[in-house]
Amino acid sequence: MPESPPHVVIVGAGFGGLACAGGLGHTPVRVTVIDRQNHHLFVPLLYQVATAALSPADIAQPIRRMLGRYPNIEVRMADVVGVDTAARRVGLADGGAVPFDRLVLATGSSYGYFGHDEWAEHAPGVKTVEDARFIRARLLTAFEQAEACDDPERQKALMTTVVVGGGPTGVEMAGAVAELTRHALARDFRRIDPRAATVLLVEAGPRLLTTFPEELSDYAYAKLRDLGVEVRLNQAVEDVREDGVRIAGRFIPAGTMVWGAGVKASPAGRWIGVETDRVGRIPVNPDLSVKGMEGVVYALGDTALTMGGDGRPLPGLAQVAKQQGQHLGRALRANLSEGAPMPPFHFKDRGNTAIIGRSAAVFDFGRYRLRGWFAWILWAIVHVYLLAGFEKRLLVAMQWLWRYATYQRGARLITNPTHGHVERAASPLGEAPQGAQGSEPRRRAAG
Amino acid sequence: MPESPPHVVIVGAGFGGLACAGGLGHTPVRVTVIDRQNHHLFVPLLYQVATAALSPADIAQPIRRMLGRYPNIEVRMADVVGVDTAARRVGLADGGAVPFDRLVLATGSSYGYFGHDEWAEHAPGVKTVEDARFIRARLLTAFEQAEACDDPERQKALMTTVVVGGGPTGVEMAGAVAELTRHALARDFRRIDPRAATVLLVEAGPRLLTTFPEELSDYAYAKLRDLGVEVRLNQAVEDVREDGVRIAGRFIPAGTMVWGAGVKASPAGRWIGVETDRVGRIPVNPDLSVKGMEGVVYALGDTALTMGGDGRPLPGLAQVAKQQGQHLGRALRANLSEGAPMPPFHFKDRGNTAIIGRSAAVFDFGRYRLRGWFAWILWAIVHVYLLAGFEKRLLVAMQWLWRYATYQRGARLITNPTHGHVERAASPLGEAPQGAQGSEPRRRAAG
Repeated sequence: MPESPPHVVIVGAGFGGLACAGGLGHTPVRVTVIDRQNHHLFVPLLYQVATAALSPADIAQPIRRMLGRYPNIEVRMADVVGVDTAARRVGLADGGAVPFDRLVLATGSSYGYFGHDEWAEHAPGVKTVEDARFIRARLLTAFEQAEACDDPERQKALMTTVVVGGGPTGVEMAGAVAELTRHALARDFRRIDPRAATVLLVEAGPRLLTTFPEELSDYAYAKLRDLGVEVRLNQAVEDVREDGVRIAGRFIPAGTMVWGAGVKASPAGRWIGVETDRVGRIPVNPDLSVKGMEGVVYALGDTALTMGGDGRPLPGLAQVAKQQGQHLGRALRANLSEGAPMPPFHFKDRGNTAIIGRSAAVFDFGRYRLRGWFAWILWAIVHVYLLAGFEKRLLVAMQWLWRYATYQRGARLITNPTHGHVERAASPLGEAPQGAQGSEPRRRAAG
Repeated sequence: MPESPPHVVIVGAGFGGLACAGGLGHTPVRVTVIDRQNHHLFVPLLYQVATAALSPADIAQPIRRMLGRYPNIEVRMADVVGVDTAARRVGLADGGAVPFDRLVLATGSSYGYFGHDEWAEHAPGVKTVEDARFIRARLLTAFEQAEACDDPERQKALMTTVVVGGGPTGVEMAGAVAELTRHALARDFRRIDPRAATVLLVEAGPRLLTTFPEELSDYAYAKLRDLGVEVRLNQAVEDVREDGVRIAGRFIPAGTMVWGAGVKASPAGRWIGVETDRVGRIPVNPDLSVKGMEGVVYALGDTALTMGGDGRPLPGLAQVAKQQGQHLGRALRANLSEGAPMPPFHFKDRGNTAIIGRSAAVFDFGRYRLRGWFAWILWAIVHVYLLAGFEKRLLVAMQWLWRYATYQRGARLITNPTHGHVERAASPLGEAPQGAQGSEPRRRAAG
């Protein structure tokens, strides 16, 4: 009787998990990919869904279709609630359990609210399709309400959008909202002038895009100001309510609030009972195995605390997760089929980019830096290329071209109940919430 | 002091309401269009959203954008709760009131559940974006659950889709579900074979597509059978539960149920306190004015009971609503600016069409009849042409071409909580439900 093949379970079908699964495709290894969603999401473009430029389906692909060509890979849509490392089993919310020989944790991260998880309801991050749809509905509804309203104070409040966090997500979001109000919405109202809308970008630190060189931060600041965004540096958010935020002691009424600050890893660290760093990341060895669980449990992407060549933690970027997934997939394939040792992971920096708006982006390649129109074109090419699947690439590229020519937005749909932000966190499988994780907000496993 | 211009209020931005508004654009008449949604929806293609072929934004356009070029037209996103015909005011759910000189009711229709409105929760119709997304999520989730399940009976039940009603919507839906399971989903699962999924089309009458000639009904029947759809004629649905339907005394467990039978007009008849026909339609004069409210209140599309040249009521088709809207817009323009009399409406039959599946459609032009591949091409051309807006036409056409070549579906997203069908009926404006209409399910005003 032949031995049954080793079974690798990958939790999370984000950039890291998918890359790892791909590396194990067409091998004698049995692989199961578990995700709470049925689709892989291209999260870096999600802010474009939130600002009505793209549809969710433009940046999402069914995980089954992406891995369908590998007969040795099974996909399971389920919520993971815990891991029994001794018995080597992953526990699911539906009561099921998936046994494993090797476990890869690629469950991504969410935003941290500095101990104020109740703020999430009013100022959601941009991590899931539901988040993006909620923000889109809230933003567009606020302008509808302003149009129907006679009180100038309330109109101004409804037409105010506050974006928290001056990292790439915050900068992209603030720029996109400003362009939406200045162009796509500009001529469609009779009583309000959307061009007069306020977009506030709040950053607690002294500059925007702190992971970029200072000259690119300055460029982003200047470009956002040109777009009409009010940038507030060195100011922390002190409170978030349904109707606005308190910043530097002053309450600012707002119709829409978006959160892009702080980072919190998924609860994977608690599943396996290891000590994590301050933001929940699992410390791993150079081969990405979890310390103390060598040869059995691995973690990558935003879930893992990986040290770079300079001794500092690697940043939470899609390219880090993707490279780690590719590395781990190859390493596990060689290890499981030939008994090869697990080599250490080395990050190759492909450059870092952020987009501010039409014709304005920044690129940091270490020695080279780019900004402006050419950086924007490069940004667009890179993102269209990275979008998985030919059909999507072409469609997204066409929509970008169209919008560039017309300033229009194709996905101005209000469909989510604005007050549905809490209910929408319910599982699509109708299962009980992740009780084991306590008050952890339920989030998509995305690398 | 110049007299203030006459004010026409149009409730509903479906095909009829939009056409009427367009006819009054660039005139000295003041126009207000009220809809509970911010978007016009191309309802005839909504079944393609429900079956993961198109995204909601592909077939929806912001009403504001569509009417933005007419400075005399205002758009208001609001829920109408009643009409005070004596004071000439439309009452809104947010407490507001809109005065009018002329009122056009173009509020569309929904499906009738033969006195069993509680069935709607389990077997929704395909009338709104939320309906379509709910059906899509339920359908795709059922296959995910079947894959995760070990009980063959339950697998079979989850992989069963029941479509109620053999009209165009039911035929299109059943054909699209069969193609989805036979092709797009076919290779993506490991434990279940989606090609073995059951698609049941139930029709209480003796044939499908009763509004078409019998030879086209027979063709649709044969084509659906070829696709693997189980068609049940002369069988009525006796009960709908969360887990299946009872038909002809037998309970059939099902994972997904879709309703496409019966018609019920919007509650507009009750708003103005007139007697309606059995399905809620308002009797109108040949000039589309409501009987007893001549010169003040008009109704069109599915809201109105209009008699055709043969003395029978005109069917509830988009082309009827559109022609009536165009007619009424022109008539009101001439009447309000020059005092011209209101001419009677005459329907010009442009032909009737339904699609069964890939390369299979039917066309009825009265004297000419078409079916098969050529009818399918014609169907596609007509629908791409009818889709408002150049960008959408091109994108939809490309996606159809792509799917024709690959059998793939681009929008296989599960994002709505399956059990959220009731909550999702909440208003996007966060207002109280339409209390005045009692138990009326809340629906989009669509002509």
